[in-house]
Amino acid sequence: MDTLAVKQQFLDLQQRICDALATQDGEQVFHADQWTRPAGGGGISCVLEGGAVFEKAGVNFSHVMGDKLPPSATAHRPQLAGSTFEALGVSLVIHPRNPFVPTSHMNIRYFTAKPKDAEPVSWFGGGFDLTPYYGFVDDAKHWHSIAKNLCDQFDKSYYPRFKKWCDEYFYLPHRGEARGIGGIFFDDLNELGDEKTLQFVMAVGNGYLDAYVPIVAKRLHTPYNETHKDFQRYRRGRYVEFNLVYDRGTLFGLQSAGRTESILMSLPPQVNWRYNWQPESGSAEAELYTHFLPHRDWIAS
Amino acid sequence: MDTLAVKQQFLDLQQRICDALATQDGEQVFHADQWTRPAGGGGISCVLEGGAVFEKAGVNFSHVMGDKLPPSATAHRPQLAGSTFEALGVSLVIHPRNPFVPTSHMNIRYFTAKPKDAEPVSWFGGGFDLTPYYGFVDDAKHWHSIAKNLCDQFDKSYYPRFKKWCDEYFYLPHRGEARGIGGIFFDDLNELGDEKTLQFVMAVGNGYLDAYVPIVAKRLHTPYNETHKDFQRYRRGRYVEFNLVYDRGTLFGLQSAGRTESILMSLPPQVNWRYNWQPESGSAEAELYTHFLPHRDWIAS
Repeated sequence: MDTLAVKQQFLDLQQRICDALATQDGEQVFHADQWTRPAGGGGISCVLEGGAVFEKAGVNFSHVMGDKLPPSATAHRPQLAGSTFEALGVSLVIHPRNPFVPTSHMNIRYFTAKPKDAEPVSWFGGGFDLTPYYGFVDDAKHWHSIAKNLCDQFDKSYYPRFKKWCDEYFYLPHRGEARGIGGIFFDDLNELGDEKTLQFVMAVGNGYLDAYVPIVAKRLHTPYNETHKDFQRYRRGRYVEFNLVYDRGTLFGLQSAGRTESILMSLPPQVNWRYNWQPESGSAEAELYTHFLPHRDWIAS
Repeated sequence: MDTLAVKQQFLDLQQRICDALATQDGEQVFHADQWTRPAGGGGISCVLEGGAVFEKAGVNFSHVMGDKLPPSATAHRPQLAGSTFEALGVSLVIHPRNPFVPTSHMNIRYFTAKPKDAEPVSWFGGGFDLTPYYGFVDDAKHWHSIAKNLCDQFDKSYYPRFKKWCDEYFYLPHRGEARGIGGIFFDDLNELGDEKTLQFVMAVGNGYLDAYVPIVAKRLHTPYNETHKDFQRYRRGRYVEFNLVYDRGTLFGLQSAGRTESILMSLPPQVNWRYNWQPESGSAEAELYTHFLPHRDWIAS
């Protein structure tokens, strides 16, 4: 597939997302950094910091290439380890200020690997997932409905498969906890062919805005106090733990000599760790653990 | 070697360190949690939080055993992967409140592995290293002199070898930065025999107090403002990155189903990440990068 076409669509999406979120913030705008990667390729990192609505929002585009596909990219395709490769992606993490507004993550990516003695192999990956601090059933239903509807237009099996994959992927074994309420996650996807799969990942990218913006709008004026903020900072610690210990995208970036500041712009602006802290039983904070983090069918519930 | 003797000496050291640091804090004491590990063994985690001098101080003792030594413990001894094992250790990380007081880390550990068809193999590991936010040459010299003196009593080759090992180990490749000003680090050590090596690691544990307590005393009343505190919180981000991405002890703990709260009590209480931040050239903050983090012979300097 023509990587230039993928590139243009990914760049347009990045711009659309930045425009939508900056409008919603109203106070700060995104600053774009163009960077090149010594080993090949580069990207554009757009970051908004210290906004009225968003404490830190990073929307990254990258297009990198190399001589040797790192192992983190070939977990399911070991025969491709060491191939020359090209990778294109848009990846974002949004950390809102108000603890009642959830953190969100979206990523779409295209890989093409050229093994020495075989035909090139291409695939797409991506998804979006939501990480609330204080959960709302309505928001979870809305988030998952958007995901299901966009998936259903391509393949009725996608939402259940990718919802389950998301639950399994965004999981912290050392905490026995999901990172959030999930969404969809997929990798190694090309069963519909390149053209159709590109349409699908673009639907994921656009669907992300339909899913997230209304939730932000609905919760951003909820009054909060220092207790809520403290809990948000504490829970953000789990986000850091997941991204640095398990996340394949982060590991791929660090292993492939990516641009560190762009890879780690997903990390929250302010984070607290407290030893052995547990929310008080029956509190709003405890409800996150008992009602929202356990895997659940949000659409049927 | 009799693991009970090792255990008693390690537990005594833990107590001595907690007593010394609590005395220095003057406001908070250490709280001890005794825990057991479902897969075998357990430990005692001592934590002081919200003190006058120490914002978070964790001193952990653990004694764990299992059927299958995890790969993180056998990087240099691949033939032992999968052996039954026993591991004893004291590990601590101290995060002071005042940004002019450096963060410190010390660890000593004893491993014994029993391969199915061979004799048991035992070794020790450990060391201590210092992570200043604002560097002082005098402190660095003092820290390294204590390390050198205690090493020299066992083997004149130890300090240069273990200082270099420490510089190499506590390094963040994705930042191109050392974690701090180093100290000593060693692993797979048993060349002097069990008895003598145990004496050596106990000298490391005791030397840690001689090295750290005077530095804390000297710097704890240095006036500081929000800029200093911000820089401390920002630099603590590097500590998190190192511990979660690279640290062998952390990975060993998480891989061997250790007690998560004890493994992660090394994480700082408050941490900030800012996108692509750089200190102003010539500032006290920039001096950390230019004068203290680059590897250096502190004793000769």
